Amino acid sequence: MDIIQISHYLDQLLDIHNIKDASRAVNGLQVERTGDIKKVGLAVDACQATIDMAIDAECDMMFVHHGLFWGGLQPVRGAHYKKLAHMMEANLGLYSAHIPLDVHPVLGNNRQLADVIGLGNLQEFAFHDGQHIGLRGTIAPKTGHELGGMLSEALSANVRVIGDGVIRSVGLVTGGAGKLLGEAIREGLDCFITGEGDAYQFHDAMENGCILMFAGHYATETGGVKAVGKHLEEQFGLETTFLDYPTGL
Amino acid sequence: MDIIQISHYLDQLLDIHNIKDASRAVNGLQVERTGDIKKVGLAVDACQATIDMAIDAECDMMFVHHGLFWGGLQPVRGAHYKKLAHMMEANLGLYSAHIPLDVHPVLGNNRQLADVIGLGNLQEFAFHDGQHIGLRGTIAPKTGHELGGMLSEALSANVRVIGDGVIRSVGLVTGGAGKLLGEAIREGLDCFITGEGDAYQFHDAMENGCILMFAGHYATETGGVKAVGKHLEEQFGLETTFLDYPTGL
Amino acid sequence: MDIIQISHYLDQLLDIHNIKDASRAVNGLQVERTGDIKKVGLAVDACQATIDMAIDAECDMMFVHHGLFWGGLQPVRGAHYKKLAHMMEANLGLYSAHIPLDVHPVLGNNRQLADVIGLGNLQEFAFHDGQHIGLRGTIAPKTGHELGGMLSEALSANVRVIGDGVIRSVGLVTGGAGKLLGEAIREGLDCFITGEGDAYQFHDAMENGCILMFAGHYATETGGVKAVGKHLEEQFGLETTFLDYPTGL
Amino acid sequence: MDIIQISHYLDQLLDIHNIKDASRAVNGLQVERTGDIKKVGLAVDACQATIDMAIDAECDMMFVHHGLFWGGLQPVRGAHYKKLAHMMEANLGLYSAHIPLDVHPVLGNNRQLADVIGLGNLQEFAFHDGQHIGLRGTIAPKTGHELGGMLSEALSANVRVIGDGVIRSVGLVTGGAGKLLGEAIREGLDCFITGEGDAYQFHDAMENGCILMFAGHYATETGGVKAVGKHLEEQFGLETTFLDYPTGL
Amino acid sequence: MDIIQISHYLDQLLDIHNIKDASRAVNGLQVERTGDIKKVGLAVDACQATIDMAIDAECDMMFVHHGLFWGGLQPVRGAHYKKLAHMMEANLGLYSAHIPLDVHPVLGNNRQLADVIGLGNLQEFAFHDGQHIGLRGTIAPKTGHELGGMLSEALSANVRVIGDGVIRSVGLVTGGAGKLLGEAIREGLDCFITGEGDAYQFHDAMENGCILMFAGHYATETGGVKAVGKHLEEQFGLETTFLDYPTGL
Amino acid sequence: MDIIQISHYLDQLLDIHNIKDASRAVNGLQVERTGDIKKVGLAVDACQATIDMAIDAECDMMFVHHGLFWGGLQPVRGAHYKKLAHMMEANLGLYSAHIPLDVHPVLGNNRQLADVIGLGNLQEFAFHDGQHIGLRGTIAPKTGHELGGMLSEALSANVRVIGDGVIRSVGLVTGGAGKLLGEAIREGLDCFITGEGDAYQFHDAMENGCILMFAGHYATETGGVKAVGKHLEEQFGLETTFLDYPTGL
Repeated sequence: MDIIQISHYLDQLLDIHNIKDASRAVNGLQVERTGDIKKVGLAVDACQATIDMAIDAECDMMFVHHGLFWGGLQPVRGAHYKKLAHMMEANLGLYSAHIPLDVHPVLGNNRQLADVIGLGNLQEFAFHDGQHIGLRGTIAPKTGHELGGMLSEALSANVRVIGDGVIRSVGLVTGGAGKLLGEAIREGLDCFITGEGDAYQFHDAMENGCILMFAGHYATETGGVKAVGKHLEEQFGLETTFLDYPTGL
Repeated sequence: MDIIQISHYLDQLLDIHNIKDASRAVNGLQVERTGDIKKVGLAVDACQATIDMAIDAECDMMFVHHGLFWGGLQPVRGAHYKKLAHMMEANLGLYSAHIPLDVHPVLGNNRQLADVIGLGNLQEFAFHDGQHIGLRGTIAPKTGHELGGMLSEALSANVRVIGDGVIRSVGLVTGGAGKLLGEAIREGLDCFITGEGDAYQFHDAMENGCILMFAGHYATETGGVKAVGKHLEEQFGLETTFLDYPTGL
Repeated sequence: MDIIQISHYLDQLLDIHNIKDASRAVNGLQVERTGDIKKVGLAVDACQATIDMAIDAECDMMFVHHGLFWGGLQPVRGAHYKKLAHMMEANLGLYSAHIPLDVHPVLGNNRQLADVIGLGNLQEFAFHDGQHIGLRGTIAPKTGHELGGMLSEALSANVRVIGDGVIRSVGLVTGGAGKLLGEAIREGLDCFITGEGDAYQFHDAMENGCILMFAGHYATETGGVKAVGKHLEEQFGLETTFLDYPTGL
Repeated sequence: MDIIQISHYLDQLLDIHNIKDASRAVNGLQVERTGDIKKVGLAVDACQATIDMAIDAECDMMFVHHGLFWGGLQPVRGAHYKKLAHMMEANLGLYSAHIPLDVHPVLGNNRQLADVIGLGNLQEFAFHDGQHIGLRGTIAPKTGHELGGMLSEALSANVRVIGDGVIRSVGLVTGGAGKLLGEAIREGLDCFITGEGDAYQFHDAMENGCILMFAGHYATETGGVKAVGKHLEEQFGLETTFLDYPTGL
Repeated sequence: MDIIQISHYLDQLLDIHNIKDASRAVNGLQVERTGDIKKVGLAVDACQATIDMAIDAECDMMFVHHGLFWGGLQPVRGAHYKKLAHMMEANLGLYSAHIPLDVHPVLGNNRQLADVIGLGNLQEFAFHDGQHIGLRGTIAPKTGHELGGMLSEALSANVRVIGDGVIRSVGLVTGGAGKLLGEAIREGLDCFITGEGDAYQFHDAMENGCILMFAGHYATETGGVKAVGKHLEEQFGLETTFLDYPTGL
Repeated sequence: MDIIQISHYLDQLLDIHNIKDASRAVNGLQVERTGDIKKVGLAVDACQATIDMAIDAECDMMFVHHGLFWGGLQPVRGAHYKKLAHMMEANLGLYSAHIPLDVHPVLGNNRQLADVIGLGNLQEFAFHDGQHIGLRGTIAPKTGHELGGMLSEALSANVRVIGDGVIRSVGLVTGGAGKLLGEAIREGLDCFITGEGDAYQFHDAMENGCILMFAGHYATETGGVKAVGKHLEEQFGLETTFLDYPTGL
């Protein structure tokens, strides 16, 4: 099975042609390579560190959440050259899925995070640019302190909890979605969980009585790539390895 | 001296008619009030907490960095109503200055932060939307670890240091300016300091060898309002008080 | 019944979440207040004069067609400060409905004006920005002079009639919709009635044989607020009063 | 002297290549014709009525303020066809100048209107889209009622006066510039005169203490074409005639 | 039958109100005229040459693919004046249909060209701005050289063939649609035929293995006007004549 | 001398930071490489064919007019992957200059073409998006036929001549600039020369009496890369070779 075939399968699995995203996400096959794929490296970010880890681990391709093109149309020089040159020299391919990986109902980052906190009665949440990019649901009542502690332990990450009180309903959007706090307020949810946000959201949370949690951009987005990796193992017998490179952000 | 007169003075001092800003900054007098001004409350944010502190402290007006209108054109209801209603009942006025307060060459947030780290040979930095909104300069050589520790102690804030090495040149933009890291890289600076940013900047810093510091949006922006407060005391004999409400972000 | 409850009822009645409008219309509750609502002041415009009339009449809230935010995002100073300060001091709330009030099929300004001239066979008219904002229909034949006189008497307003001839079909859009004359011409109607327009429409009317009537922006828009007032009286036993402040325009 | 030569002269006189305008103004020669020009018809609007008057008066060309293209790019059919066909059959040319005719310092509509009310100490006024399009100055003190009466008599037009009080300073913009009332308020002028506006300006004038006068779009714009006509008579010995077709708006 | 009646018929036949086009296409009746229509001149372009040919041939109106308004909103002077003046003097009307004539399933330029090369299994092709503007289908296998020769002979035009190989599937868009080559590549077609394009498409064709043919903008668009002409003859007994003025482009 | 140093020199020589261009031009170093540069391949287009020619000729880098990124932000797959992979495997660098190479006063494509036809009294021409991108001047009188023949022979290319007559003044813009014909007409030039254009320009040229020549996009743009190559030989003793791959367009 070569990278064109796997990419075609993943395109369908993650529905990348129908889900909207920033143009710089460039969902799908990002860097071609030749020959059969036997081992896939799973990473949140396609950065120099994870590329080198993939090469050391003798991966044939990487499957990532954040690809190589966030800098937009740019010359192949400096850090961008170095990454592409290492990949091509090692014949290492790359597939990237951004929002399609966040929102997949079973394998997605949102769903994986929902499972971590035992979120039930799941519904679509956070309508943004024509589609929902989050989930909402209910949990057995917990204080903000308790839920923050549970998250912190499960994700091995610092979790910043803003506000306190009893939580029964939660909206969540993995990654950097602090700006969507307003959606949770509008829907009257007790708590909004995301990876990171801006100082501007602090007062909105406090003054509107919605507990806000920043659980880390990286930490909230490891679930999706791991779940897709497991799916590829089961479906095609591919070997996978998780290339962990936490940023603490 | 009433609030119209003070506002007129501050408009000139901070040059608010010539410095560009987001429309939601609404620089200048934000909420009128009647009668003489004797006491001014200084705050980073005009939020319910600082408004209540100002009323308790019997302030006649507040001078802030972040005003009341970041939510855009909106009805006077909920949290927005409560803030305005408290202010009007207490006859509390409000003046706000955003980028004009960041960039004032003597009183500005950037300059106050530059003084904290002993930055010399100051030059304009970070050209953004037609104007420079930061400063660059040189320091006596220090490691990233050392400079981060110095900042943390001076600002009483957590400082996240990304990357390490010896620092001789620094670019800084107070507040939430992580996206301007690229300016520091382009100018070949050893270090970029700002208040907060996104996870996306982590790898840019690491792969381009520019040490990145997130020192807190709030913590990097207390300098300007304090400096203007001191100026008002000296110039007009007004009483001022700093209304400290750190967000930890 | 407090202002949040009445606002919720009116939001549904007038379908404000589904009808498009200029952002500055800010349809819905515009200024909150505390306590029970017993008396509602009805006005075309929320201006200083009608606000003072409402306070004198001991109204608890106003229901208006043109609200407080047509000036866009602006500081609370000068005339804007004075209006808000008077309202807050008197605990006077405000609800505003612009296009949703024009187009309501029973209570709307268009329908009220249609009834004034006995317009039958009503159909939607004047498709603008994704929705119809006017009505068209037929009347028993009259000359332009006769219909203009009838309008003038019924509305107690000067009516400017441009062109003449026998009228059997009429399109109407209340308020300042002269620019929509072209819709009436395209549909072959004998007459187009609106509140006000520009000199540019004079020749379009004359050269295309469509009689144009400017019956006053204010005069064509008193019907809707009165009809909603009557509805509130019947539905909830609220007291209402019409705050008449004609501009002659 | 043919129409190309006269057009070239007028282009320079009115500086049409440097003054900004709406694209639909199409300043300059609008409809070519053949042969020598001996008689020029002067009109505010190029409409069917004035075209027919020009043909009856045996004019070779028209000089107007409002040309033929306000409808934008459109087929040559209906009323537009009829006007062009009449012009071509009669070999009648057309030159149009919109904002360039408003702002000419000697011949312009603004200057002609300023002279009507004896405005002195003239200065540029009303900065709009990169240029000033009005004039401001001072008059011997008069009430709003007195100045309105003077205007009405001089222009033979109805003048609507909104507000009252003593007037010493006046800003004016001929035509349909009600939206620029805010400029007069910002500059602290006692009175703003224009041709026509919207009901929305009524309250702005009343609440900000700036007397507003609507003196008629047509009535405020006859001065410019007459002044240019006189100039052409003196400069080139051309015969001219004013084609008066008032709209009452 | 006058030109308003014929235009109304053609508007329906070609569905001009529902098919999107550039605003400068101004589909439909472009220049009115008076009296009965007996003879129609058919041309690709409404240029001075074809207008003069139509007048010489005593046509009452022209039916063209490219009308008079590609220059946008412009004064009636120079070449534009000359064309309109000739038409009005000769009482010659004009109807123009651009994309609606390309895409008509029976009479359209695309369909006429498809018939020339015996294209079967026709399907919509080249989705652009909300609609398909081309056709795709299959042919009996031919080399690029053979198909190019067939086209050249049938259209009496130079055909530039880029690339070579056996062709079984073809996508085509008449006129100047080189930029749509990518659609053919994406759909895996062997060959893309259009009228003209840019040098930029040369390498895209060569490197992606899709044979590209530029058969002439004019040459690929004579089919539609001829087919409509024949339809008008059969439907209404009108006389028609093809006004051939090839540009070689 | 490595590719960073040569790129820095070329950036200054061609002033790429001050000359505006399409974002997809990506002027400057496009693909980095390691080690010293000894031999430079010169080409109009960076396509698979010229890349392979450069590798065969053992070039260390290419200098081209049209770079690799005209397709915009896109994945590294298919033809794009193949080009980059070949370059990286062969350690072949790439520098590209688009409009900066057209307009350089000595080495530029425009100037080289001007010299071919002996154009004198050179002036800037064709103001487009804030800068002039062509040249105009005078020649000893020639017919269109003669000048076309001279061009054809000098460039070894087919030259399409539209219109005829005596030529004394010429405007030229190399490449695909047919749309700028209007500039030549407005300036009253006898002839406009460019590489390629659209059929739409045919009638504009004919009806406005300006002879139009399409001399080939490729053929008009070989001059600049050759001139820069010669400059590099003289300045740095580098070896260069011209990689000729004409498209005939």
